Amino acid sequence: MSKLTDLFSRIIQRNNINLRELGFDAKPFVWEIIPADRMNKFYAFYGITPHHPLNFQFVHSALAGSYFLGRCRATNSVLYKSDIRGDELKKKGETFRFGEFEIETAKDEEIDIEDSMLIKTLVHNYSHDPETPETFFIKDTVATHYANIHGSPSDGSFLGPFATVDLTTMRDCVIGAFSYVQAGEISHMKIDPGTVWVRGGDQFNFLYRYPENYLNTYIYFRAGIQPKGVFMDFMEDREEAFKRIFDVVHLDPVSVPASASLDRYAVIKPKMVIGENVLISQRAFLQNTKMGKGANAQENCFIINSTLEGNNVTAHGAKIIEANLGVNGFVGFNSFLRGRPGRQLTIGKDSIVMPHTIIDIREPLTIPPGHLVWGLVTSQEDLETHSMPIDKMAAVESGVSLGNMYFEGSGSAFVTAFRDRIHHILEANGAFFDGTNNRGHAQRNQNISFNTIQPYPEGELEGLYPTIRIEP
Amino acid sequence: MSKLTDLFSRIIQRNNINLRELGFDAKPFVWEIIPADRMNKFYAFYGITPHHPLNFQFVHSALAGSYFLGRCRATNSVLYKSDIRGDELKKKGETFRFGEFEIETAKDEEIDIEDSMLIKTLVHNYSHDPETPETFFIKDTVATHYANIHGSPSDGSFLGPFATVDLTTMRDCVIGAFSYVQAGEISHMKIDPGTVWVRGGDQFNFLYRYPENYLNTYIYFRAGIQPKGVFMDFMEDREEAFKRIFDVVHLDPVSVPASASLDRYAVIKPKMVIGENVLISQRAFLQNTKMGKGANAQENCFIINSTLEGNNVTAHGAKIIEANLGVNGFVGFNSFLRGRPGRQLTIGKDSIVMPHTIIDIREPLTIPPGHLVWGLVTSQEDLETHSMPIDKMAAVESGVSLGNMYFEGSGSAFVTAFRDRIHHILEANGAFFDGTNNRGHAQRNQNISFNTIQPYPEGELEGLYPTIRIEP
Repeated sequence: MSKLTDLFSRIIQRNNINLRELGFDAKPFVWEIIPADRMNKFYAFYGITPHHPLNFQFVHSALAGSYFLGRCRATNSVLYKSDIRGDELKKKGETFRFGEFEIETAKDEEIDIEDSMLIKTLVHNYSHDPETPETFFIKDTVATHYANIHGSPSDGSFLGPFATVDLTTMRDCVIGAFSYVQAGEISHMKIDPGTVWVRGGDQFNFLYRYPENYLNTYIYFRAGIQPKGVFMDFMEDREEAFKRIFDVVHLDPVSVPASASLDRYAVIKPKMVIGENVLISQRAFLQNTKMGKGANAQENCFIINSTLEGNNVTAHGAKIIEANLGVNGFVGFNSFLRGRPGRQLTIGKDSIVMPHTIIDIREPLTIPPGHLVWGLVTSQEDLETHSMPIDKMAAVESGVSLGNMYFEGSGSAFVTAFRDRIHHILEANGAFFDGTNNRGHAQRNQNISFNTIQPYPEGELEGLYPTIRIEP
Repeated sequence: MSKLTDLFSRIIQRNNINLRELGFDAKPFVWEIIPADRMNKFYAFYGITPHHPLNFQFVHSALAGSYFLGRCRATNSVLYKSDIRGDELKKKGETFRFGEFEIETAKDEEIDIEDSMLIKTLVHNYSHDPETPETFFIKDTVATHYANIHGSPSDGSFLGPFATVDLTTMRDCVIGAFSYVQAGEISHMKIDPGTVWVRGGDQFNFLYRYPENYLNTYIYFRAGIQPKGVFMDFMEDREEAFKRIFDVVHLDPVSVPASASLDRYAVIKPKMVIGENVLISQRAFLQNTKMGKGANAQENCFIINSTLEGNNVTAHGAKIIEANLGVNGFVGFNSFLRGRPGRQLTIGKDSIVMPHTIIDIREPLTIPPGHLVWGLVTSQEDLETHSMPIDKMAAVESGVSLGNMYFEGSGSAFVTAFRDRIHHILEANGAFFDGTNNRGHAQRNQNISFNTIQPYPEGELEGLYPTIRIEP
């Protein structure tokens, strides 16, 4: 096991060097939490389709349980049950627009992970950094359980559990547990746990911070111990259900409409209703739920005993339990919406649940249509300081604050940015497919071959993978 | 499916060009027997261990259901459920001896399959051709169901079903169904079906030919139809049992002694007794059988309701049903030994069943210890013209014939060559392991990681694999 331990050490050392000015030491946070002997217990796998750029290069890395779709290289890295999805990478010759700039890509974009450790991390899509349109780099970085690195190149950064960086290039930053950052370019910042920060250049700035004592109930992350709390318990309780999915090569097919797609590595429990243009992604978990036309369940989503009326986005890592969502409802990254049996959560149509929102109720709760919701909501009372009509937000001209939420800038720009993005997500996922046009992931991801790869089973290279190169 | 069909055509055309002087046309024999749509139904897989040279290169090939262990490249080839085992390949710097010659290998040996089509073919080990010690080439060659290419480089040859070429380099040859050729170097030969030919340079020559009408019952191979007969039926009846083995990622472990190895892709049915130093290889099928200490069941073997007392070799593709074999008994390639319930076949210790022997009885039959057996035996009467005491064979000085068997040369050289080879096989397979020394495949093959690979699932490349390179 010695070469693997050496690799662990080297990655942590590189991460610490980058974070030296913040005085951060990654080692006590990660050294014990992934025992090296688990690194050869799970196979990794990659998808092959004619629709995705095929080029995988794995060199001197441990990849246990990780999934790859689309052009990617991993070098001197440890990926543990991570999901590296590059199915929206730019093609050579594409024009990339960023603000007033336009640039043509000189080659096919690729995800390039080097000297990094990603634990149960979701890496999705494409570099939004106009400085490196052809390389989505993740370098000298450590990301912990269920972090999302979404279109966000990263150099020398550390992400706590359930942290999301979204369209944000970061250098030498520490992102606290369950923080959501969508802020363009950041460097040398330490983001406290439970921070929700959305910045739109100089147009707007949204900031919410979870009270620490409440957050600790859901996710508690300290040096030297495994992450704890409701979120971890929730995931662990359902881990067993995924075991069969990974253990069986040919699963009994679950029938879905011809325009919908159900990933082979999703868990589907009785009784589901799956409409047209529905996308159910890798490692999603669905049970006793209606997915209306064009609804999606992205990676790491859990949707249980719920109804999604249609064109609903359930962003990466979101959980929806005992809830009814009207049409066009959006639930952001890692949100945790939990009603109770007989005491369901109802969210009216056209609502936006901000990323990293927790709605955890013990009495029935209804959020009216067209509302924006954020932060921690456990009762009707909380709702008053954690939501507002979207129209009201759109009318804000210079700023507004409510409870722990601070907003400055143009509410209209903020709402428009959100709406545009939701539209883009639905479009990319194939929600608007009409049988001929507007094909998206739901239609393209129906037929993927998966290849499995495993590490050396013993000897000094135990847990490390051989060098693997896959080309078209 | 067009690129795959193009590849089929091209391989057949190359094979036909090589075989033009024999006036042979491979197309009607193979064009219909592997429907192109089966080429994307089965995953291929390769093994990773620290004990075997790791280097796989697959380029523009279809590999459905094929297995690879040890350094191998496949280029412009179609491999269907074939088994490419290179775990005895020479290492760089090894001295290779051939007759009076010695040569040091300049690099690690590799199996190099190019412009060839192998259907359910077993390719095993290492080039015995002193002209190409570093490359075990298979070029412009077509091999059909359950053929064995054993240490035999091949250029432009065609092998019928259940044909075995053993330590024989062949150029532009057609080897008929169920023929066994161990003859050094051959070229431009057409070997009739059911020929058993063992040549030891100028020392001896053994020849047996099955009567055509009897052979047709067991294997019948003509242009334009699938191979038929008892052998094909026997394999097809047991195909279902292998399905689970390939469908399930983590099988419930079957306990075997620490010094024994049971391949993860073997089928084990109740009730087995597995002794020390036993080797059970990939795609072996064992049921209700005692495998005594040091016995082996090589690839594609079926051993059912039988007892093997110990140090028994069951060579590739041999079947043993309702039989009791004494210690040190050898059963050669593709032999088919079938007793009946309550009417078992008994073979005394130290006996040698020649490759491609058929013993198919309806009454109990006993072969005394120390006998050599060949050809077709269905009764006590047949035995008289198809066996003799090994000592008697060893005493032959210039020649002997019996029934359809013709032998010329030194019986002693023939017997010694056989005995040396059996000893080598037992040694290589780990039968003589004493807990410290004489480690072989049984001890080294216990812990192999398997990676699966699949072809493009649709589009014009459907059924073809991407370019895959695996290095240490």
